[in-house]
Amino acid sequence: MSTKKINKILVANRGEIAIRVMRTAKEMGIATVAIYSDADINAPHVAYADEAVNVGPPASSESYLNIERILDVCKELNVDAIHPGYGFLSENAGFARAVEANGITFIGPSTHAIEVMGDKLAAKNAVASYNIPMVPGVNHAVTEIDEATKIANEIGYPVLIKASAGGGGKGMRVVESSDELAEQMTRAMSEAQSAFGDSSVFVEKYIGSPRHIEIQILGDQHGKTLYLFERECSIQRRHQKVIEEAPSPVVDEKMRQAMGEAAVNVAKACGYYGAGTVEFIVDENLDFFFLEMNTRLQVEHPVTEEITGIDLVKEQIYVAEGRKLDLNQEDLKINGHSMEVRVYAENPRENFLPDTGTLNTYVTPQGPGVRVDDGYQQGMDIPIYYDPMIAKLTTHGANREQARLRMLRAIEEYEISGVQTTLDFCDFALKHEAFVSGNFDTKFVGKFFKPEYLNNDTPEEEEIAMALAAHIFNVEATGSERKSEQNGLSKWKLRAR
Amino acid sequence: MSTKKINKILVANRGEIAIRVMRTAKEMGIATVAIYSDADINAPHVAYADEAVNVGPPASSESYLNIERILDVCKELNVDAIHPGYGFLSENAGFARAVEANGITFIGPSTHAIEVMGDKLAAKNAVASYNIPMVPGVNHAVTEIDEATKIANEIGYPVLIKASAGGGGKGMRVVESSDELAEQMTRAMSEAQSAFGDSSVFVEKYIGSPRHIEIQILGDQHGKTLYLFERECSIQRRHQKVIEEAPSPVVDEKMRQAMGEAAVNVAKACGYYGAGTVEFIVDENLDFFFLEMNTRLQVEHPVTEEITGIDLVKEQIYVAEGRKLDLNQEDLKINGHSMEVRVYAENPRENFLPDTGTLNTYVTPQGPGVRVDDGYQQGMDIPIYYDPMIAKLTTHGANREQARLRMLRAIEEYEISGVQTTLDFCDFALKHEAFVSGNFDTKFVGKFFKPEYLNNDTPEEEEIAMALAAHIFNVEATGSERKSEQNGLSKWKLRAR
Repeated sequence: MSTKKINKILVANRGEIAIRVMRTAKEMGIATVAIYSDADINAPHVAYADEAVNVGPPASSESYLNIERILDVCKELNVDAIHPGYGFLSENAGFARAVEANGITFIGPSTHAIEVMGDKLAAKNAVASYNIPMVPGVNHAVTEIDEATKIANEIGYPVLIKASAGGGGKGMRVVESSDELAEQMTRAMSEAQSAFGDSSVFVEKYIGSPRHIEIQILGDQHGKTLYLFERECSIQRRHQKVIEEAPSPVVDEKMRQAMGEAAVNVAKACGYYGAGTVEFIVDENLDFFFLEMNTRLQVEHPVTEEITGIDLVKEQIYVAEGRKLDLNQEDLKINGHSMEVRVYAENPRENFLPDTGTLNTYVTPQGPGVRVDDGYQQGMDIPIYYDPMIAKLTTHGANREQARLRMLRAIEEYEISGVQTTLDFCDFALKHEAFVSGNFDTKFVGKFFKPEYLNNDTPEEEEIAMALAAHIFNVEATGSERKSEQNGLSKWKLRAR
Repeated sequence: MSTKKINKILVANRGEIAIRVMRTAKEMGIATVAIYSDADINAPHVAYADEAVNVGPPASSESYLNIERILDVCKELNVDAIHPGYGFLSENAGFARAVEANGITFIGPSTHAIEVMGDKLAAKNAVASYNIPMVPGVNHAVTEIDEATKIANEIGYPVLIKASAGGGGKGMRVVESSDELAEQMTRAMSEAQSAFGDSSVFVEKYIGSPRHIEIQILGDQHGKTLYLFERECSIQRRHQKVIEEAPSPVVDEKMRQAMGEAAVNVAKACGYYGAGTVEFIVDENLDFFFLEMNTRLQVEHPVTEEITGIDLVKEQIYVAEGRKLDLNQEDLKINGHSMEVRVYAENPRENFLPDTGTLNTYVTPQGPGVRVDDGYQQGMDIPIYYDPMIAKLTTHGANREQARLRMLRAIEEYEISGVQTTLDFCDFALKHEAFVSGNFDTKFVGKFFKPEYLNNDTPEEEEIAMALAAHIFNVEATGSERKSEQNGLSKWKLRAR
């Protein structure tokens, strides 16, 4: 195949990922087009682009998901290629197909790969001949209690029953022993039917202490596929990642190679090219099992960029142009350690409920080993229409401990007022013994976190405490007034009188 | 010797370097004390510290250079150690001696090393037995024309005559042939006498196309000294660095090792420990000659941190505590390429004259491979009392070209209004063919730069040009009004009608 130079990219997304993609495009001399909804007229991704077009009302379905409108913009502005980011249309095979049908390059995998990996059963079947470790169970949907009983006896209890059409924990049941099976199966099927209109379920081995570890892969359209090592993503709230790191504290060289090769095989099973992620569940014996493949750039891709020195967006664009990867597996080395925390507008004191408001103060951290990817500026509102992620804060260090200490320092430097964020939860998690030791799983929040562990002091309470301390220790309490006025926070210093 | 844990550091400096040092201290769990003058009451380095003390009026001599006051603060606040940063008291042997006499650790080399390397002649004599390449000439001051003639004939023309007490180009003369020598020598001695009260001069080989390349060294108090590779610092204006990078585009492995070993020998010649820099002048044949040693952390240290992954401030603190370096020369590897531009409040259109004013807009760049170290915030004034550096912008990439393209992208993202800065000059330099090819020397500015090469368009002129373009090309010119109002800049986009 011949290569086709991309000269103008439309980013079919918003927020930090739109800017992330445009930064690389700018470095490559590629013109950029932003799209935005009525809710994002003042968003930084609009200002960042060379051209920007309003594609509709705030509701995603009428703007960021409006395929026809987006294709029209591409034609109007002579766009060569579309980068979908993550979320929105990024894993929509119909969109990818429509893009290519219009002679525009889709910066992502083939529609075939998106379709296969977007269907759990099709994915399992596709990888079946590649000797990929799978969670013990069967790769077909079950509707009969007798069959479920037979399967459960074969793989051994505890087992997990989950809706084949499902997601988000609905229609999911853990069964500890055979005498509970019939009842739980009935309930799971009933939940599945009402939630997804399909009562069929999978039955598989239940993993009690699961870690979520994923492999970044990168392939070209000429048959070369590489693995860019793992990301540890076990710190989650509401089944969603909130802290990621690379490498994982529990993966050694041998396991890394085994997981990497398995991931490359998953990619080969669907003829994958571009950047993709193969997710694995890892049990307490460090056995790993294929979970699913995400056929897009992940939110947490920066930690991989930090440890490999590879710009994943640049590689995505090169691959989409039809170029051959000029990297080889043996050239890839892990350099140090990287961590990412997701700064969500959520209240960790209220079960991580999304919060809205205005960013009255918004000052990002800086300095050695700190990277910020964000899509907001001081004074902006967090719109209610979209994912509540404000920013990703990534650190890099010579080793895990340095990356962790830099993250704690960077979190302390981050100044946000006006909305609740996940920053103080992340500070708690990063200081927790389980995290420090690397001995944690996806149940970290449930096991170790309580809202009351977070500092709930209001500025007024701090003020009283400081005045008291000043009285007792005979020192002068002085606050930086300028600062408190600006951001509603009090920063106090004790100075000798 | 025993090690002595440092628990509280006073940073005897201001601006970005004070914050730089405190960031590492925070990561190490070490308490920090800032000092500030009346001009810096609202400076970020004051807010960053755990404790902060006003040490006097704006004039440096009465505040940042006020040794007695600084030592008093240390005693009052039980400070264990002082980090001097660069400039101010960092290379003042008397200060280092007073610090240690008060039982406080000086985070830097011994007073002996500062004294030896602070005196050009003493430095030359100290390294004489170490076989360090020196610019051909004599290592003693000359006052007689006869002697100068003899030396010049020996080393060959052109020769450079420079004041032995001098600096800043005063008393410096290039002599092309023997018939000019007497006259130029007389003038140089006369200039030296009036500028420094000492007419004695050095005579040495004149290097017509000099590059400035320096080696970062790191030594402990137990005899181990390492070199952390080179920094290329040839892009200068007014004899001062403005763009630095590591590694140098002209240094190969063999030259790197030779320069590194020479630098380690310079360090050994004065019993050096801590972080230090050995500066070399490199001629058009890539022969290198010892220039001087800087006995402190350099402004441009981040590029070395980016390519080695080593936190130089952390190592400085460890060494000051008396610990042994746990690094070995063979462990050190160059990872990718890093560039730094210094963002000075200077007007490149007016011969880089320092500019003052208020930072009406101040938005720093972000994203992959970008590091910002600064000491200012939006709304702050640039005080007239100190060095006009606002920030250091550093990028890292897998190779030189990626680091360069990231820098250009980051410069474009940097939004500063209210003062003139060196950013647009740096943009010009980074795009210049001589820089791109790596084929440049310290005369880059004089050879290639003219103020008229910079875009002098004012927002009003841009507005007219855009309206005209809109009229001609039948497109709609739209400006982000919010943005223009906030920062006084117009960012225009052309959209199809």
